[in-house]
Amino acid sequence: MEKWRLTYRLLKHSSNFDRRLTSGHRYLFGRTFIPFKENFRTLECPSRSYVNGASVSFAIVNGNSYAVQHRYLASVASTTQRNPDFSKITSDDISYFKKILGERGVVQDEEKLADANTDWMRKHKGSSKLMLQPRITEEVSQILKYCNSRCLAVVPQGGNTGLVGGSVPVFDEVIINVGSMNNILSFDKVSGILVCEAGCILENLISFLDNQGFIMPLDLGAKGSCQIGGNVSTNAGGLRLIRYGSLHGSVLGLEAVLANGTVLDMLGTLRKDNTGYDLKHLFIGSEGSLGIVTKVSILTPPMLSSVNLAFLACEDYASCQKLLLEAKRKLGEILSAFEFLDANALNVVLKHLDGLRDPLPSSVHNFYVLIETTGSMESHDKEKLEAFLLQSMNSGIITDGVLAQDINQTSSFWRIREGIPEALMKAGAVYKYDLSVPPEKMYELVEEMRARLGSAANVVAYGHLGDGNLHLNISAPQYTDGLSSKIEPFVYEWTSKHRGSISAEHGLGLMKADKIHYSKSPETVLLMAAIKKLLDPNRILNPYKVLPPSILSQS
Amino acid sequence: MEKWRLTYRLLKHSSNFDRRLTSGHRYLFGRTFIPFKENFRTLECPSRSYVNGASVSFAIVNGNSYAVQHRYLASVASTTQRNPDFSKITSDDISYFKKILGERGVVQDEEKLADANTDWMRKHKGSSKLMLQPRITEEVSQILKYCNSRCLAVVPQGGNTGLVGGSVPVFDEVIINVGSMNNILSFDKVSGILVCEAGCILENLISFLDNQGFIMPLDLGAKGSCQIGGNVSTNAGGLRLIRYGSLHGSVLGLEAVLANGTVLDMLGTLRKDNTGYDLKHLFIGSEGSLGIVTKVSILTPPMLSSVNLAFLACEDYASCQKLLLEAKRKLGEILSAFEFLDANALNVVLKHLDGLRDPLPSSVHNFYVLIETTGSMESHDKEKLEAFLLQSMNSGIITDGVLAQDINQTSSFWRIREGIPEALMKAGAVYKYDLSVPPEKMYELVEEMRARLGSAANVVAYGHLGDGNLHLNISAPQYTDGLSSKIEPFVYEWTSKHRGSISAEHGLGLMKADKIHYSKSPETVLLMAAIKKLLDPNRILNPYKVLPPSILSQS
Repeated sequence: MEKWRLTYRLLKHSSNFDRRLTSGHRYLFGRTFIPFKENFRTLECPSRSYVNGASVSFAIVNGNSYAVQHRYLASVASTTQRNPDFSKITSDDISYFKKILGERGVVQDEEKLADANTDWMRKHKGSSKLMLQPRITEEVSQILKYCNSRCLAVVPQGGNTGLVGGSVPVFDEVIINVGSMNNILSFDKVSGILVCEAGCILENLISFLDNQGFIMPLDLGAKGSCQIGGNVSTNAGGLRLIRYGSLHGSVLGLEAVLANGTVLDMLGTLRKDNTGYDLKHLFIGSEGSLGIVTKVSILTPPMLSSVNLAFLACEDYASCQKLLLEAKRKLGEILSAFEFLDANALNVVLKHLDGLRDPLPSSVHNFYVLIETTGSMESHDKEKLEAFLLQSMNSGIITDGVLAQDINQTSSFWRIREGIPEALMKAGAVYKYDLSVPPEKMYELVEEMRARLGSAANVVAYGHLGDGNLHLNISAPQYTDGLSSKIEPFVYEWTSKHRGSISAEHGLGLMKADKIHYSKSPETVLLMAAIKKLLDPNRILNPYKVLPPSILSQS
Repeated sequence: MEKWRLTYRLLKHSSNFDRRLTSGHRYLFGRTFIPFKENFRTLECPSRSYVNGASVSFAIVNGNSYAVQHRYLASVASTTQRNPDFSKITSDDISYFKKILGERGVVQDEEKLADANTDWMRKHKGSSKLMLQPRITEEVSQILKYCNSRCLAVVPQGGNTGLVGGSVPVFDEVIINVGSMNNILSFDKVSGILVCEAGCILENLISFLDNQGFIMPLDLGAKGSCQIGGNVSTNAGGLRLIRYGSLHGSVLGLEAVLANGTVLDMLGTLRKDNTGYDLKHLFIGSEGSLGIVTKVSILTPPMLSSVNLAFLACEDYASCQKLLLEAKRKLGEILSAFEFLDANALNVVLKHLDGLRDPLPSSVHNFYVLIETTGSMESHDKEKLEAFLLQSMNSGIITDGVLAQDINQTSSFWRIREGIPEALMKAGAVYKYDLSVPPEKMYELVEEMRARLGSAANVVAYGHLGDGNLHLNISAPQYTDGLSSKIEPFVYEWTSKHRGSISAEHGLGLMKADKIHYSKSPETVLLMAAIKKLLDPNRILNPYKVLPPSILSQS
């Protein structure tokens, strides 16, 4: 019998979230909240479907404003069996780790462990009694070699900002937190190649590069906490993917430690290297289940000076696709974001968020697109964008549009796009899916879902059209098993049928390990399992995650 | 005892080479020669060092002009032992293959086999008696399943344009040529995602996309013959890498057949998919030693309308680096090539190639840089480039420069850069190295080599500075063992010490399989060998290549 718990938690706004605020907003939402104080209350919940729910409201504590996050916490350990092959930690183990790491590197403090055991979403909670904090690769190697020989399971952990339960223990796994390995090792101002340790916080790298006139090729809401080792291990996507591609392209080299303690030095700083198999890719996106990333070499793009934003309306989804095609051709080299939302998404934002107004109020439209450009010369970019908009208007691809004239207008346009999740949570229960779907098929799923659910729910669609990444959200007065069964497994089956991905950017972690077959062929999953067994025969690295445990225990 | 043979061969110019020609040239060079007629003469050569040599001269045959290529052919089979575990082909095998493929798909014709047994460089020659030409993936699967069960070694082959002996048999391996699998399967004009079979010739894909307003993210001299499956299997680099990155970023999905006949369907058409290990990367650049790529899904960029080219001079290498830094910032989004050559390179071109003149004749310079831009608006690109050149001149980073004013000037600038190999071959013997080196160290190797060799040789440097890819060429009156021993293994050891790559874009193939340790750590090579054994336990796929056979036969 599964159990679910509802948890309240106070969250403080981070500085980069404040940047987005405009006065008059009473309600806030973002992925950049910082935990303020552990202050939980727990309620038993009757049904699995409740775990999809989350809402955020506003509170004043000691004169400061905080968000209060309500989150349903699933006690997943109740459905997963602890692997009986794993040893339990003894006092001898602790002594050994203290010998390697010193007292400071061996954490048994309950409060610190409570944080490290709980994921950012408060949905997953382990019961580890031990967190290790290595400072150099050799220490990671010694830890893993020992754990492997003792059959002690481990969880690699960075900023612990993952959204699929991948970075926290399920049971009593040893937490290996690489946050103390946070040195920048080198930066080449000609090539833009940065080499750093895995525990570097993304925002710190962004700040470092800012002074050098470069940017990171990825940017995430969680940048204030997430670490580059975790970004690489989860193949984090983020806002700049349409322009700079995925980490499989940007990461030039890695150092990783295998389960048996072997240090793999693949820390090349070369754009071109065709000497043998490019094994670093195995560690990009494998969520710490094949090895622990300890160092990263990454190609960073130069900072450019000009940024523009347009908010446009299209009458149908076909026009959105045409617009993308034209934008790629006419704005090609300066295009840096192409986001879309449908009328339901705009309506929910306008209805539930204060201080926002329709940027194109003269008539009602079916679809909206945000186009951002980034280039090296303001006058050129503006001219290109204006010509593109005029032409798109004349040809009827867009029916209306406005170019942000100042930073306030830019913020309010982005606020519409980024405020959709918050607005949806205010609107009631919400079923959320993060899917990759071929762009030409993307909206068919939305229409089929709408036909399927009728008046029972409000189907809202938005996302990164430029990357084929659909955020499908289904808003309803409350969670019901009836509604849930109409949505799942249909949404996964539909995605699978159209060769989509059930996890565009969050990974599988613990949440979706048993759903991998929706996106990968059986032969591919079997080969993944064979590679897992080859690299980690005792399965000590991040157990119960990424791959279904049933597959790993076969053969 | 190794044996070496000298071969003469007639080569006809391809159309895209002709594009580069200007009248008055008597001597030609390019990677795009098309074999005209098999016409070889063979001489025994006394020493290994001769195999680095190649020269091209000019001939008139029946009133048409042809290049005559002189190439030293190494009979490598004399130094490698045939793996005695492999079976020899029987008439039963032939019958079985005819049952699967029909008569048409089973080639035993000696003339056709002579071509398929010999690599493009005429350096490697196998003795296969059988070439199979499957038309669908299921046939590839049946062939491999059978060969694996019979322990028959196979060589996957596409256009056979590789430069390291990777695409021809070493002994009597069965050649599996995928050239008949050449259908374009789908193209999405919104996302730019192309799905096609492995045997599609690169130039045909370029032509197809041209009609759609898109380009391939890679372009190679060999495009008229090379096939996309081979491009992917060798992780081909080419001319557009600085702008569009490597195939690890562009290739979105693959279908590959494993040694045991298992078809791995990883043919996703998604930019974002974080569901499990991204195994396609194992097959990109593994040179057919882990599986045969049968289908490819690739992200293609939109075609842009404006191209410009500048030829610039710098006084020192530090200035070349500064110029790259500035170009990345000021031209960032339109930069599409950044090539450099030193004074020795220019001199050798001006001395040995007719019809070319120094674009910057007013004084002598130490370094030259070619900068190409590609963008969507001619006026903007020109203005950016002119402003950038003015500023670079005022700040002293460049000492002189000229912007190509028409197609003739563009051609002659490119001819200088692309004519270097031809000029070097005319100058005498030439030792050629294709290295990736961190840009800040790149020229140190050249200077060290110069100091090492003194007046015995002319050390010439050029290459893709933007990608850190150095073409180090050492020109001398003749090959001598004394000179050879001063260059090697020093050049590989130096590259290794500075974490460079001994093969920037050509792969390891047969030529460099035993040199992998210069660029990869022992632990990494051992893991490669373990993965090879996991995927191909009988080692039937492209044997003797990529990894040293000694490592595979261990354990």
